[in-house]
Amino acid sequence: MMKINVGVVGVGNLGTAVINQLENHKIFNLVGVFSRRYLEGTIPFDKILTFKDKIDILFLCAGSQNDLEDHASTFIEHFNIIDCYDNHSRLKSHIKTIDEIAKENKKIALCSFGWDPGLFSLMRGLFSSLGYSPYSVWGKGTSQGHTQAIKQIDGVLDAIQFTIPNKYMIEKIKSGEDVEKNNLHSRECFVVCDPQDEERIEYEIINMPDYFKGYRTTVNFVTHEQLKQIKSFSHKGEILTKNDVMNFSLNLRSNPDFTASVMINYAKSLIKLKQEEKFGAHTIFDIPMSYIMEDDEFTLL
Amino acid sequence: MMKINVGVVGVGNLGTAVINQLENHKIFNLVGVFSRRYLEGTIPFDKILTFKDKIDILFLCAGSQNDLEDHASTFIEHFNIIDCYDNHSRLKSHIKTIDEIAKENKKIALCSFGWDPGLFSLMRGLFSSLGYSPYSVWGKGTSQGHTQAIKQIDGVLDAIQFTIPNKYMIEKIKSGEDVEKNNLHSRECFVVCDPQDEERIEYEIINMPDYFKGYRTTVNFVTHEQLKQIKSFSHKGEILTKNDVMNFSLNLRSNPDFTASVMINYAKSLIKLKQEEKFGAHTIFDIPMSYIMEDDEFTLL
Repeated sequence: MMKINVGVVGVGNLGTAVINQLENHKIFNLVGVFSRRYLEGTIPFDKILTFKDKIDILFLCAGSQNDLEDHASTFIEHFNIIDCYDNHSRLKSHIKTIDEIAKENKKIALCSFGWDPGLFSLMRGLFSSLGYSPYSVWGKGTSQGHTQAIKQIDGVLDAIQFTIPNKYMIEKIKSGEDVEKNNLHSRECFVVCDPQDEERIEYEIINMPDYFKGYRTTVNFVTHEQLKQIKSFSHKGEILTKNDVMNFSLNLRSNPDFTASVMINYAKSLIKLKQEEKFGAHTIFDIPMSYIMEDDEFTLL
Repeated sequence: MMKINVGVVGVGNLGTAVINQLENHKIFNLVGVFSRRYLEGTIPFDKILTFKDKIDILFLCAGSQNDLEDHASTFIEHFNIIDCYDNHSRLKSHIKTIDEIAKENKKIALCSFGWDPGLFSLMRGLFSSLGYSPYSVWGKGTSQGHTQAIKQIDGVLDAIQFTIPNKYMIEKIKSGEDVEKNNLHSRECFVVCDPQDEERIEYEIINMPDYFKGYRTTVNFVTHEQLKQIKSFSHKGEILTKNDVMNFSLNLRSNPDFTASVMINYAKSLIKLKQEEKFGAHTIFDIPMSYIMEDDEFTLL
C-alpha cells in the first residue's frame, strides 16, 4: 500500500486535531510537526527544508490568516500543501499566487479545504449549477477565523466570536421569499483586554473589513474566567434555497476536529492528482468525489 | 460559444421535462427527439444512426429499466450518452458493460445522473469518506422507478407507488442510535387492473426482486379515476448521519423535472471530458463540480 508522508505546520487547535486524527488513517505517515514556537516534539521552522524529499504533503494549520498566507506561498515552492484558508475576500488572489508558484515548481496545492470554504462551497456550486441560488447560514457557533481576527488586534488578551443566524429570515427563505443575503446573521464578540483599550478595540472589531464590517456586531468585554466558561468548539450551519428545495446542514461538536477530517480525507486525492500531474492550486470544485473514496463506489451509488 | 448538440430518446415524463428545460440553456441545441412510438414531431428509432455525426450527446429517457439498459448498450457504440439508470442492484454490471463498449468506441457515457442515484450518491460518497455512515431516506413521494416496475407487470393498466419514510426511525438516527438500514420505509402501491388479476399482481409486486422484496409493501386496487386523483410528481428525501452531523435533503415539487435538471446540468461536463479524452462510463463520483459550474467559481468558494 502506498503511504503518504505528512508534515504538519502549526500546533494550535487545528494542527492538534490533524495530528490526532492522522493516526486513524493507515495511508498517512506523520513525518514531522513544525512550529515557530519551541515546543517539545516539534521541529523548528528553519529545519523544514531538510525534509523536502521526505514529505509528500504539508498540512498548513497556522492560527492566523496572515501566517497561513505566508506559509502557503513560502512552502509551495518545495512541498505539496493543503490548507483551509478562509478569508473569502482574498481567496481569489491567494489561490492565484499559490497556483503560479505551484505550477512553476511542479507542486500540488489543495486550497481552502474545510467546511466553509470547503463542503459548503461544494454545495453552493452544486445548488447554483442546478439553478437554485444558495443562501449560507452559520451558527450558532464559534467562528475560528473571526476569533483569530479579533486576537490579532493590539491589546486583545483573549477572545471568542459567536456567529448567530437569524431564524426569522431562514424561515422566510424556506417559505419561498427572497431575502438580503448579507442580513442573515449577527456576530457576538467576547473580548478580554485592559479596560483602557476597550473603546479602541470595539471600534477596530466593528470596522474590520471582510470579517465584521457590514454585519450586526456586538462586542462584550469579559474576564479570563468568564471567557473560559463560554468557550465552545461546536458549530452549525446550512446551505439552503428558496422553498427548501435543496438543503445541506452540518451540526458539529468540534469545528477544528471536523475541519481536520475534511483536510485529511481530501489530502488522499494527492495520489491521483500526482499520477495525473495536475500541478497547481486546486479547490474542492476540482476534486472528483472518487478521488477521496475508499470503498467500492458502486455500493454508494 | 461552443454548442452541445443533443438528441432525446423517449418522450415520457422525463423526456418531456428534458425537452422543455433544454430551451433555457443556451449551450444546448436540440437536434432531434427519438421515439419508438410514432408521435408527431419525433423521429423513428430506425433513423437514429443517420444522426451519428450531428449529435454530441443522447439523453436516454426511456420509461422502463429494460429499455434504458438496451438503449444505453446499443447507442453507446455510436453516441455519447447520459442516463439516470436507477436499478441499484444492477448498476455495477450495467455500468461495466457500458464502460467497455464506450472505451472501444471512444465514447463518453454519463451513467445514473438523477437525484438517486445521482446527488444522493454524491452525498453518500462524501459522508462516507468523512467517516459518517450515511442513511438514505426517501419520501413521501412517488417513485418513478417503482411505478414503472409495477406497470411492466402483465395485466397492470395503470399504477403509482408511494415511498413512505418511517419518521420514528429517522428521529432515532438523528438522536444517535444505530438502526437497520433496510427498515426505514414502507411502499404503498395503487394499481388499476381487471379484478381477476388482482391476486397474481399483488403477489408479483410484493415478490419483485430489487424493487419490493424485503420492503414493507401494501398493494391497493383502485379505479382509473381514483388513481388520477392521487397521482403526484412531488418527492422528498434526505441523506443523514447519526447525531445529525451531516444532512442533505431534497424537497421536490416535480421529480421528473428535477431529474431532468440534474441530467442537463451534468451533461455540460461533456465538453471537458471530451477535451481530456476521458472515454468510458462515468458516474457522479467522477465529475468535479467545476465541470458543471458556469459562474466565476471564486464567488461560490
